[in-house]
Amino acid sequence: MKSVFSERQLLHTPSKELSDGEMRAAVELPARAEYVRDRILEVGLGDIIEPSAFGRAPLERVHTKDYLDFMEGFRALHEAAGRTGEAFPFIWPTHGLRSDVTPRHVDGLLGRYSFDAGTPIGPMSWEAAKISADTALTAAKMIAQGAPVAFALCRPPGHHAMTDRFGGYCFLNNAAIAAQYLRDEGAERVTILDVDYHHGNGTQQIFYERGDVQFLSLHADPADEFPYFLGYADEVGEGEGEGCNFNWPMPLGTDWSGWSASLDEACARAASFGTDTLVVSLGLDPFENDPISKFKLVSDDFIRVGERIAKLGLPTLFVMEGGYAIDALGVNCVNVLSGFEGA
Amino acid sequence: MKSVFSERQLLHTPSKELSDGEMRAAVELPARAEYVRDRILEVGLGDIIEPSAFGRAPLERVHTKDYLDFMEGFRALHEAAGRTGEAFPFIWPTHGLRSDVTPRHVDGLLGRYSFDAGTPIGPMSWEAAKISADTALTAAKMIAQGAPVAFALCRPPGHHAMTDRFGGYCFLNNAAIAAQYLRDEGAERVTILDVDYHHGNGTQQIFYERGDVQFLSLHADPADEFPYFLGYADEVGEGEGEGCNFNWPMPLGTDWSGWSASLDEACARAASFGTDTLVVSLGLDPFENDPISKFKLVSDDFIRVGERIAKLGLPTLFVMEGGYAIDALGVNCVNVLSGFEGA
Ligand SMILES: [Zn+2]
Ligand SMILES: [Zn+2]
Repeated sequence: MKSVFSERQLLHTPSKELSDGEMRAAVELPARAEYVRDRILEVGLGDIIEPSAFGRAPLERVHTKDYLDFMEGFRALHEAAGRTGEAFPFIWPTHGLRSDVTPRHVDGLLGRYSFDAGTPIGPMSWEAAKISADTALTAAKMIAQGAPVAFALCRPPGHHAMTDRFGGYCFLNNAAIAAQYLRDEGAERVTILDVDYHHGNGTQQIFYERGDVQFLSLHADPADEFPYFLGYADEVGEGEGEGCNFNWPMPLGTDWSGWSASLDEACARAASFGTDTLVVSLGLDPFENDPISKFKLVSDDFIRVGERIAKLGLPTLFVMEGGYAIDALGVNCVNVLSGFEGA
Repeated sequence: MKSVFSERQLLHTPSKELSDGEMRAAVELPARAEYVRDRILEVGLGDIIEPSAFGRAPLERVHTKDYLDFMEGFRALHEAAGRTGEAFPFIWPTHGLRSDVTPRHVDGLLGRYSFDAGTPIGPMSWEAAKISADTALTAAKMIAQGAPVAFALCRPPGHHAMTDRFGGYCFLNNAAIAAQYLRDEGAERVTILDVDYHHGNGTQQIFYERGDVQFLSLHADPADEFPYFLGYADEVGEGEGEGCNFNWPMPLGTDWSGWSASLDEACARAASFGTDTLVVSLGLDPFENDPISKFKLVSDDFIRVGERIAKLGLPTLFVMEGGYAIDALGVNCVNVLSGFEGA
């Protein structure tokens, strides 16, 4: 299968994050993508294509214009405020505060358009995020044009990004942007299957009232794990989207037996939805040695993930999400893709 | 006038805060209270009384039980998670995430019960916060028993603390707890006049639907200043509280002429409310040299603040809030109190 990737995605170079109650070294590092790229070349999975530029239109199908304007102009605001380093928000409009006001001040704007303090904005973060979305769109275009499968080596990741909020290392929701693009290019129904260890709160929020995009997420119970405030089993969609959203929150320590049972259920949901096209939010952090996660999948399990997804027999776009055991990331990611191709 | 203060309020010793986009040295330091205490002694304002213990009941009149339980048990949870330092939340349930779930995980709980990352919880923070509330209650009791005026040297401050969220250096809303206590002890109508540079979002939220407690706040325009998401002029109360909430957001750079015009308007509102008792949330950060604020009041202006408030002719409880020009804090604070007494 073909992959899409640009070295410009490496321009986002976070150094630290507020995490687990303290400032720590960042884990969403450029090397993550390099390990995956190198493994693709090592096993000869297929060509790696440069992304094309799709511009702002497909981003606006998923994110609000004011959010995109904020991200576009943020670093200029930041520098006009006399700041030079990574930007972190430090106040948020939680319940009891107003969600209908947009402050002028740069710190007010940062809080307005985010939901965590783990996602620093550096000088080139937005540039890298846009290329990452182009990577997803370029791979989606291959699918729209008839390819049975494609891999978007997205980084920074996307599934935590909401319509108008960044967070969880994510700025643009690559999988959601790709899914919407596929709809706009003719797919009647699209399923997004999110296998990242963390709930894809952004993707769920974006499509929660939509009947044409199904969202299925396998993840650690949010009562115990980031993002804590979305991803519970009772979230089934609303309005036209009712019955199109399914979460499989699983306990910490879940291994292949428990995880694959949820995967089987999710695949059954996808099959019964009558979907034309599958988008997989491919996080590799269910891996046993992931430094920020607590599931127990082993490297060989990821081959079986690919095999199981292939059985759906759908045009399939894989979009890279999380995974922080950096030196194992290439093997685990390509195991999924090879498992899919070999099935 | 008598003041209330305990050295145990100094046990909260924050070292750092996430502020203006980076980790910085904390500014809400124990020395703040010491400078004020020393100035009270220096000018012979009156006796300084130790606070009495009021227990949890008066706190529960303002804050939710689950919030108080969380704060009470937090450090044990924190240490059970293998952590030892100051605790910072890093994710918040903003709009689009759920406000109706309470995660099990300590980081989820921290986000659930806060709204910023500027308010670290150290080993003795909760103890100090409770004593600070007792200080407010002890001074309120003097007023309830007939004293014309009393000063609660509260620290940590309180006016940003909401029913169930800490933030802005505040854990318990001392002024709100005192106002509710005064109501419970027989005052029919209480006015809280908040002259801190920052909007008292917690106090407003606590009493927003109440017709018996009027909230009047003079502060920097929240479009430009913390707390950014509350304190706008169109917030006038709801339900029974409609017409009992008034904000005077003022531009950065406001000096005595603009500020005192707003104070006159606020005092007119208090006079027309038919209030029995006045609680003043006394922040000294409108001071020209305050390191985190941008108003231009000079030290002598604070004498006039006290004189103007005295003209209302009401039993008056002063409750200390913010102010970070530490070495000028004693003079500025006692200037208000002396101005009141000398009027
Ligand atoms: Zn993840
Ligand atoms: Zn203040």
